[in-house]
Amino acid sequence: MERILDRINSPRDLKSLSESELTKLASEIRAQMIEVVSNNGGHLASSLGVVELTIALHRVFNSPVDKIIWDVGHQSYAHKILTGRRASFPTIRQYGGLSGFPARSESQHDAFGTGHAGNSISAALGMALARDMDGGNYHVIAVIGDGSLGTGMAFEAINHAGQLGTRLIVVLNDNGMSISPSVGALARWLNRVRLDVRYAHAKQRVKGAFSRLPFGQSAWRLSKSMKRSVERVLLPNAFWEQLGFTYLGPLDGHNIREIEAALIRARDLDTKPVLIHVLTQKGKGYAVAETDVVKYHGIAPNGTQKASSLTYSQVFGEAMGKIMAENKKVVAISAAMLDGTGLSSVARDFPDRVFDVGICEQHAVTLAAGLATQGYIPVVAIYSTFLQRAYDQVIHDVCLQNLPVIFAIDRAGIVGEDGKTHQGSLDISYLRCVPNMVVAAPADGGELRDLLFTAVSSGKPFAIRYPRGNIQNRILPEKLSLLPIGKGKLIREGKDLTIVAIGHSLLSALKAAEILSYEGIDCAVINALFAKPLDSELIISQIEKTHNLLTVEENTLCGGFGSAVSELVNQSSLPGIKIRSLGLPDCFIEHGPQELFRSLFNLDSEGIVQYIRSSYPELFSGSSVQSQEGL
Amino acid sequence: MERILDRINSPRDLKSLSESELTKLASEIRAQMIEVVSNNGGHLASSLGVVELTIALHRVFNSPVDKIIWDVGHQSYAHKILTGRRASFPTIRQYGGLSGFPARSESQHDAFGTGHAGNSISAALGMALARDMDGGNYHVIAVIGDGSLGTGMAFEAINHAGQLGTRLIVVLNDNGMSISPSVGALARWLNRVRLDVRYAHAKQRVKGAFSRLPFGQSAWRLSKSMKRSVERVLLPNAFWEQLGFTYLGPLDGHNIREIEAALIRARDLDTKPVLIHVLTQKGKGYAVAETDVVKYHGIAPNGTQKASSLTYSQVFGEAMGKIMAENKKVVAISAAMLDGTGLSSVARDFPDRVFDVGICEQHAVTLAAGLATQGYIPVVAIYSTFLQRAYDQVIHDVCLQNLPVIFAIDRAGIVGEDGKTHQGSLDISYLRCVPNMVVAAPADGGELRDLLFTAVSSGKPFAIRYPRGNIQNRILPEKLSLLPIGKGKLIREGKDLTIVAIGHSLLSALKAAEILSYEGIDCAVINALFAKPLDSELIISQIEKTHNLLTVEENTLCGGFGSAVSELVNQSSLPGIKIRSLGLPDCFIEHGPQELFRSLFNLDSEGIVQYIRSSYPELFSGSSVQSQEGL
Repeated sequence: MERILDRINSPRDLKSLSESELTKLASEIRAQMIEVVSNNGGHLASSLGVVELTIALHRVFNSPVDKIIWDVGHQSYAHKILTGRRASFPTIRQYGGLSGFPARSESQHDAFGTGHAGNSISAALGMALARDMDGGNYHVIAVIGDGSLGTGMAFEAINHAGQLGTRLIVVLNDNGMSISPSVGALARWLNRVRLDVRYAHAKQRVKGAFSRLPFGQSAWRLSKSMKRSVERVLLPNAFWEQLGFTYLGPLDGHNIREIEAALIRARDLDTKPVLIHVLTQKGKGYAVAETDVVKYHGIAPNGTQKASSLTYSQVFGEAMGKIMAENKKVVAISAAMLDGTGLSSVARDFPDRVFDVGICEQHAVTLAAGLATQGYIPVVAIYSTFLQRAYDQVIHDVCLQNLPVIFAIDRAGIVGEDGKTHQGSLDISYLRCVPNMVVAAPADGGELRDLLFTAVSSGKPFAIRYPRGNIQNRILPEKLSLLPIGKGKLIREGKDLTIVAIGHSLLSALKAAEILSYEGIDCAVINALFAKPLDSELIISQIEKTHNLLTVEENTLCGGFGSAVSELVNQSSLPGIKIRSLGLPDCFIEHGPQELFRSLFNLDSEGIVQYIRSSYPELFSGSSVQSQEGL
Repeated sequence: MERILDRINSPRDLKSLSESELTKLASEIRAQMIEVVSNNGGHLASSLGVVELTIALHRVFNSPVDKIIWDVGHQSYAHKILTGRRASFPTIRQYGGLSGFPARSESQHDAFGTGHAGNSISAALGMALARDMDGGNYHVIAVIGDGSLGTGMAFEAINHAGQLGTRLIVVLNDNGMSISPSVGALARWLNRVRLDVRYAHAKQRVKGAFSRLPFGQSAWRLSKSMKRSVERVLLPNAFWEQLGFTYLGPLDGHNIREIEAALIRARDLDTKPVLIHVLTQKGKGYAVAETDVVKYHGIAPNGTQKASSLTYSQVFGEAMGKIMAENKKVVAISAAMLDGTGLSSVARDFPDRVFDVGICEQHAVTLAAGLATQGYIPVVAIYSTFLQRAYDQVIHDVCLQNLPVIFAIDRAGIVGEDGKTHQGSLDISYLRCVPNMVVAAPADGGELRDLLFTAVSSGKPFAIRYPRGNIQNRILPEKLSLLPIGKGKLIREGKDLTIVAIGHSLLSALKAAEILSYEGIDCAVINALFAKPLDSELIISQIEKTHNLLTVEENTLCGGFGSAVSELVNQSSLPGIKIRSLGLPDCFIEHGPQELFRSLFNLDSEGIVQYIRSSYPELFSGSSVQSQEGL
């Protein structure tokens, strides 16, 4: 049976559909998303929740002339399917395929790239101001979730838009969840609105109540300001009106006609910014996703979720539980990422010592600094790219005051299918330049636990970065150990070349050394553990022996770990040193399997061997003869 | 005549003073501040505005047991004078003297370090949570200006505090100004409150109006929810109530008794966060400062303001005016720093193309990205340390999408008297690791103009960093020139040592080369201009000649310009190269004169000469003989 969806090659094709066709189309889109995401992994629940909203938006507005910006962007799957990417949709999040987020480079319908929360209104306001300066008349629509709305920068943008009175539409996609349930007073207020099913009629009812009172009509008309006031109160829009927005809603986000009517009204209001409050259900239309929206927020590609091995996030969570049980001063802070960072079970065990602050990375870090001034040891568990949001707070509130705040930086290095917006490729560079900061990276799960334990006792600002994915250890030791800060470990002796690896790359470096040993190349391997302070003594003493040095890291080469070693070696005045660095290139890295990129960038053992072969040919000219002689 | 102030050695000494003594004390504090700031420079107007508030806070609360956090912190002068630092107050902002901002290292009364806007409520909430976990009963008070309140992170903290219902006092010091008049819808609303002088009685009046109506009492009592609603409306606290705060105010911020009464009420409310809205007058008590609060926000030390030479900020502003007159697509964005960045006159000339977004750096950058998507070329004029607030936006919204947003980064390098929180020592490091970003630094005013002109035509994300203070050129060329991106300039030929300098340090490097030439040391000097992309060709060709290389920059050595050159040289495989780097040390730098620190860190010509002498002794052992032979 032919699908209606197969006739939709651009948003234009939506306009002539009947109501029953639209309902069928919504089901077809859901079926398509569930099928593809089950296979490729991705953000299912939030995309399922906005199918009707997406259809309505594309019927009322005229993309790409009108600009639709999807905040956070992982709910843009239906948008992608409806804007000429139906055929390529099965490639989503795969290498060379569609991105899991809107990308200007991918389609003119993706008006702005979004992957982090809360940037949509600022971008939309910029476009709207450009339009007004140009005398244009297109529409700009930002679609933002209730979780993102609590982000500081979204508030900054709303405040500015309200002041300017710029024509702009903000669609508040309110599903009562960010990734975990939304927190914050604002969210609580939204909940009150959601819970009152009779809400939409409240104003009318109260006006009616007034009418039934003697003189009630007079009271109702008491004064213009009174009336305005009463209206304000009876609608939940006081907040928005005070900020200069016209408020429409709340609407049933799964009723296309109702949303369309509001969008049309907003489109035709020509004067000032409008907020349309749409209530949606995350995971709508997929029974499993509806009931466990946290789990189905994002799902891993088919098969990969089965792996029995522990992830770094799990090891972190487990270690936190252990440390918090022993040390009552340790607390944990997350910015709406309890689940992703492995803190969910810790939050259950220590509900009073785990703070989920919502998508507010800036606040998370300075809240931690405040706690640290009073003798607490806060561990901020955060993804590498999201910590970028709190960079000034790391510098100004934590490091400048030398407060013992620990940063457990998950998703550092190559992140995989989430792609450009989520690649944790900069953190070593942007953290090691900050005075007082310790920057460490474990080579495996055991070291992650030990570094965390060490950080907690250090009394210093302390960053621990580790990748997405499984640890490499088979067995984790029972006991946590204190590690000497700034000390690396010489894992393997060797006389030809010293490989200094940091983090997860260590195992590849060791394997490479093993492979090369069969060719008679004798590589020493150092597990650096710390990018700052560097173990200068160990590195210098080792290169005095081997003269050849190779650094390996999963961070950009610009200013990263290899750069720190370069600085050290250059200042050392050792003669005849040859130093090379492997790491991430100076570009934004696409989406695709982690292992693919590790291979592309020579960060797996094969790659390291090949790189050594091509970059240190002098080692091989001698040794390959030796090795052949050995046969 | 003995001052009352001379008897105040700690806040305790305030408690027994009579009302008339308090009035006299306030005058004495103002006189003291005006005298010292006239001499040392500093933030006069905002400190003058909070004298009574400071006295009241220290009478009602018991610092340091109770924690008082001064947002932005430059209004903490009276606090410093009253908390045991009266005698040392004349040293404020001088090297070795008091900091111009609260500093935990300076006094136990400085509960949290503040220099950037909006962090106080997060820090206060952290302390309050710590107190509650410890079962303590002290008070935590954040004093925040209306300008800082529009900062995203302040909203994040308010939202979280409101949700938790933590006992906490926020004093909103509302002077209707941030540095320039506050912008944003929130500020507009605050203005409405300020303008209604009869405001405080409004609730009573309306209740009275109800009473006079027949059945008015019934209407008043209509329902619990109605009553709550009406109250909400009639007070401007709807906003705060919705966010979970109890609202008190607005109060006359120069009436000590009135403020004290509100503080006592807030102190004794034991249940939830309280916001006290205090209206103050910036510059209060100093006629000149009252009438020109923008100019007197911060004033330079005696004498230094007279210098007739142009500052970099002025050159930037003048060049922007010229460029904006010629290219209608160029727009300027400032985060409440029009005056400081030199944009004031541009804003007057192009009121529709200059956007002051308030203290909202994050929004400023993404707004710029939005404008850039529509063909505009936004120039974000911002101080180096404030750009840290928008780091993720630089990465995720600008560079990832490769949008032509220009960052005019003022106060890069050593900032001088503002000290630790304002030293622009990290920007080269944190920007050069970001893909697609061009990072440049002019050596003088003419180059600043040319770099700006180049950036505008480049179509790339482009950062230009330059220091506080005067340019070194005597005469600026009439015409703006396009510079080749990524190309440095060989300014001076030489065979012994190549000095590669970037930015304002170039002149010192040239002078150093001149001085050394008299000793027979022949230094080449390169003006690098770009930290990214590096002029690899020029640098490599030059060190092939001299083998010795010295980099000079006013940025941290960790990951900075010298580090980039180190990376380059190490990958080049040139034998026998000796490379050293001069720059800022890996620590937070104190306050004091710029020239002092340039001297301390060997960044002036004398320092460079001395450093070369000690680090390249081999040059001198040969040449000094040669040079003596030459005599």
